[in-house]
Amino acid sequence: MIVGTEWLIEAEGCNQDKLRDETALRGIFARIIEDLGLKVIGSVWHKFDGEGGVTGMTALTESHLACHTYPEHGIATFNLYCCRMRPEWNWKENLRAALGAETVQVTRIERGSKIFYSPDPKSEIRNPKSKTAGGDA
Amino acid sequence: MIVGTEWLIEAEGCNQDKLRDETALRGIFARIIEDLGLKVIGSVWHKFDGEGGVTGMTALTESHLACHTYPEHGIATFNLYCCRMRPEWNWKENLRAALGAETVQVTRIERGSKIFYSPDPKSEIRNPKSKTAGGDA
Repeated sequence: MIVGTEWLIEAEGCNQDKLRDETALRGIFARIIEDLGLKVIGSVWHKFDGEGGVTGMTALTESHLACHTYPEHGIATFNLYCCRMRPEWNWKENLRAALGAETVQVTRIERGSKIFYSPDPKSEIRNPKSKTAGGDA
Repeated sequence: MIVGTEWLIEAEGCNQDKLRDETALRGIFARIIEDLGLKVIGSVWHKFDGEGGVTGMTALTESHLACHTYPEHGIATFNLYCCRMRPEWNWKENLRAALGAETVQVTRIERGSKIFYSPDPKSEIRNPKSKTAGGDA
């Protein structure tokens, strides 16, 4: 039983100033929401002090959107979880344009009673016999 | 470069009334936050009308916590993303107690420049050569 799709995005080699720019990150969320026709319930945003990054979370009627940035590492992570079918957003081109991301890795996961992965070819898959955290044996 | 760990939880066979009970779900979040010593920045909660489920999202200084419930299917999904080391929370036992979950599947994903999966043995992994969504070739 698939109840939704979640995309996990890792963007590397990003511009550090952009990763501290809450306005820029809010702008990315606004584009995603508009492009995919999503409906916002509410949001929480936070810029960590000094050189710190930004956390953004938006609850959607279709589920949620989140980002966390790590300026010291040039990395930003995004999550988009949609419980209704949506077209694929062009994360690679859009994050390159908005954040200067050099590489963008996209993993798609079906949520529900069985999880099916579409791992990015660059990712490594750990042996399923390695530790799992508190699930059924 | 690992910037954090995300746990994706699928709970099945849950009590439908509990999946519509925002107070019960807020209670689960409160336990996770207390047990793992997490710090809340802000939250968004929404109960969908009538027979609908609940969406909850909490931004943490350590990243985020989210849930979406599907009472019609007896399913609840949770995400916990922590950018600092945390002990494993006992999702199976705690969701059984709180939601009557019959089965709980836990998948752990390292976030950052390479994603490493610890898939639950019950999950299926789709061929990495199948479609990926907008990432680098």
